[in-house]
Amino acid sequence: MCPTIVNRRHSSSATAPKAAYNDSSDSVVNLNQGNPTMFETYWRKTGKKGDLLIPGCRSMSYFAEDLAGTRNQSICWFMEKEFEEEVRRIHDLVGNAVTEDRYIVVGTGSVQLYQAAIYAYALSYPLDAPDSPHPISVVCAAPYYSAYPAVTDYLKSGLYKWKGDANSFKGTNNEPYIELITSPNNPDGFIREPVVNRHGAEDGEGRAMLIHDYAYYWPQYTAITAPADNDIMLFTFSKSTGHAGSRIGWAVVKDRKMAETMTKFIELNTIGVSKDSQLRAAKILKTISDSCQQNKSDQLWNGAVAADEKLENFFYCARNLMAERWKRLRNAIKDNGFFSLPEYPKKFCNFSGQFTEAYPSFAWLKVEEEGIEDCASFLSELKILTRGGKEFGGSPLCARISMVDRQHLIDLLIERLSTFISSKRKCEKNGVIIEGGRSP
Amino acid sequence: MCPTIVNRRHSSSATAPKAAYNDSSDSVVNLNQGNPTMFETYWRKTGKKGDLLIPGCRSMSYFAEDLAGTRNQSICWFMEKEFEEEVRRIHDLVGNAVTEDRYIVVGTGSVQLYQAAIYAYALSYPLDAPDSPHPISVVCAAPYYSAYPAVTDYLKSGLYKWKGDANSFKGTNNEPYIELITSPNNPDGFIREPVVNRHGAEDGEGRAMLIHDYAYYWPQYTAITAPADNDIMLFTFSKSTGHAGSRIGWAVVKDRKMAETMTKFIELNTIGVSKDSQLRAAKILKTISDSCQQNKSDQLWNGAVAADEKLENFFYCARNLMAERWKRLRNAIKDNGFFSLPEYPKKFCNFSGQFTEAYPSFAWLKVEEEGIEDCASFLSELKILTRGGKEFGGSPLCARISMVDRQHLIDLLIERLSTFISSKRKCEKNGVIIEGGRSP
Repeated sequence: MCPTIVNRRHSSSATAPKAAYNDSSDSVVNLNQGNPTMFETYWRKTGKKGDLLIPGCRSMSYFAEDLAGTRNQSICWFMEKEFEEEVRRIHDLVGNAVTEDRYIVVGTGSVQLYQAAIYAYALSYPLDAPDSPHPISVVCAAPYYSAYPAVTDYLKSGLYKWKGDANSFKGTNNEPYIELITSPNNPDGFIREPVVNRHGAEDGEGRAMLIHDYAYYWPQYTAITAPADNDIMLFTFSKSTGHAGSRIGWAVVKDRKMAETMTKFIELNTIGVSKDSQLRAAKILKTISDSCQQNKSDQLWNGAVAADEKLENFFYCARNLMAERWKRLRNAIKDNGFFSLPEYPKKFCNFSGQFTEAYPSFAWLKVEEEGIEDCASFLSELKILTRGGKEFGGSPLCARISMVDRQHLIDLLIERLSTFISSKRKCEKNGVIIEGGRSP
Repeated sequence: MCPTIVNRRHSSSATAPKAAYNDSSDSVVNLNQGNPTMFETYWRKTGKKGDLLIPGCRSMSYFAEDLAGTRNQSICWFMEKEFEEEVRRIHDLVGNAVTEDRYIVVGTGSVQLYQAAIYAYALSYPLDAPDSPHPISVVCAAPYYSAYPAVTDYLKSGLYKWKGDANSFKGTNNEPYIELITSPNNPDGFIREPVVNRHGAEDGEGRAMLIHDYAYYWPQYTAITAPADNDIMLFTFSKSTGHAGSRIGWAVVKDRKMAETMTKFIELNTIGVSKDSQLRAAKILKTISDSCQQNKSDQLWNGAVAADEKLENFFYCARNLMAERWKRLRNAIKDNGFFSLPEYPKKFCNFSGQFTEAYPSFAWLKVEEEGIEDCASFLSELKILTRGGKEFGGSPLCARISMVDRQHLIDLLIERLSTFISSKRKCEKNGVIIEGGRSP
């Protein structure tokens, strides 16, 4: 059976050839979310090293306290001390962020910290002034993380407002604004810089307030080229180690007042952050840092198996797995021209000491075939659920596919794409045309 | 040395007699927050029964899944199944809420669920209608939990707005509103019912949207007179078991659509709720339910020590401790008329099968002495930090004192109050007057 692509540029009910794949399962492959469950395999292998025992009487207080009940003196009064220590340690080891003389603020995932950051920036302008700039515009270059618009606007806040693509943002003269920079970017994996260039803004007015989302600035996804050093930098446990269920993120913040206001936001929003998950994050980050220090030099990226007593370097394992997935995906769609994927230049990674490609958390797949308008709809007919480009303020010709889910889903994805592409190739060779996947 | 109370009704710098107490420590007794650390003693005694081991590979997904990766089919897609089961089980055992045919929604503490509930109620009215009632008024009878105004208004939402004391709320005809009912009430411990009575509102218009906050409706604080059965009922791990650091709360919700919208709020706010803390809450709630079932009948309230193999009934232990604290506090201020405390009628508790008094989580202490305007300021000069009545929309003659903090703080509180009261009694007897605590 061969698939046929008829011109559907003007069709609202574009259908992909359902007969184009024939794997053992007819199940839906849901790669819509970026659920980082691929890292489970590593954590299963670590045995007790990644386990955490929480005694029934531990961390019952609202406040972060040591075992004697003495409170942590951090600005972020609900942050467990060992969590902060392990955050600073892993950044030092990986070299992806400056943390010296910076404040750490823990959050219930980085999406809470994003809201804390826009809240703190908005409050840096007096609310009751006659020329109050509120709601302050929030922008991000498209394609941007699909949750940003809804997370910014769901409460119809008078403090800030989503204004879409930063590339087309003008605003009025001297109007302050908040620009989000996700780097590497979700959905497309590219390294990003701010794009709004406000010429003519006077000093202290119309200033850019930047939030750098570094969720994916870890060695398994991209080369670590320099320690990031920006005003507000967001990181998340989900994407760094794979523990999305713990809902832990952290911000590295330069300005004391901003760190205080972000902490205040989290106090009002959830009266702090789960201490159980902070303790777990501390344990997991420690396990990773230990694994890096035990396997620092020559084993990295080389595939050598760690000795019995040692843990395999987490980033080495994770990166090898990502590289293998990307290789298979690129191979599945190659030499055909039906789909394309972004190309990422090799860069020198200070962490590994090698030139490396990027292997992003998401594949930003573009359909190149004339006649297909919507990549996600097309893929859904292959029973591959993805997130369409429009949801990212981008083109519907693109779709975002999670590359960090469990192995059997990635296997099915690649099997279905390969089958479809090779069927199409055969049909083209034979000149057979079948409409809508029906047998001739 | 004797304290003197001069008339300071018009003085802005009222000072309490600093010489009025003389305990071994000069430290500040901070009972401003309701930090439920008193329950640590119970959990220390439970040994391994309250411990939780979390393997490194557990609950990494955003979704609630069983060990085979099958997703929980609950509306609340991030809720761990065992958490939900233990929530339903403990309500059944305690008899404080109807959960059959009700939806459970887990939250990052009940403060997040409060926001989820006002969001869901606000969205039950179309946003884009020309006669949109937004922002919808949110009210609560004073004195009310001091965090409600700030938590409602910090984002200057266009959906809802804090309108203060429900007793004086009128609104316009047929204007919908949200009324919060905290019962037993924070700060004053009384059982509450809705107070807004909107006569003349037409059917479906101007309807009351009620949120019942049942944080303190547990047997250690009050008699369980009937299973509560209201539209949206909020409970919290903090006050029921003492685990404030875990940031876990839950809502019991009648309407499916409301439960869905509350879940959506939590998705947008924090993409779910810490699974580590859900698992811990499940374990702790299970331990309590087991302790109740093992010691159901005659041991309850009678002070009998559980056999070696059994856990003491948690609610029995917690209630005895609360009763003892309240007895000592009432004793410290009695027969003097300087301070007063609310009196709570004895009620029949279905859980214990006995008539019992209430022993609220907070003491709502009122200063009765002519000349003292601000109870919290007065107490602060005895180095007792409390929260002043004004913060609850109430009288500054009252102050809220946490009764659930660690034992040594409660001991210091009672020691200082006793010393002050007995010094004052001696002075009155001797007719000695000393200004501002200075020696004569």
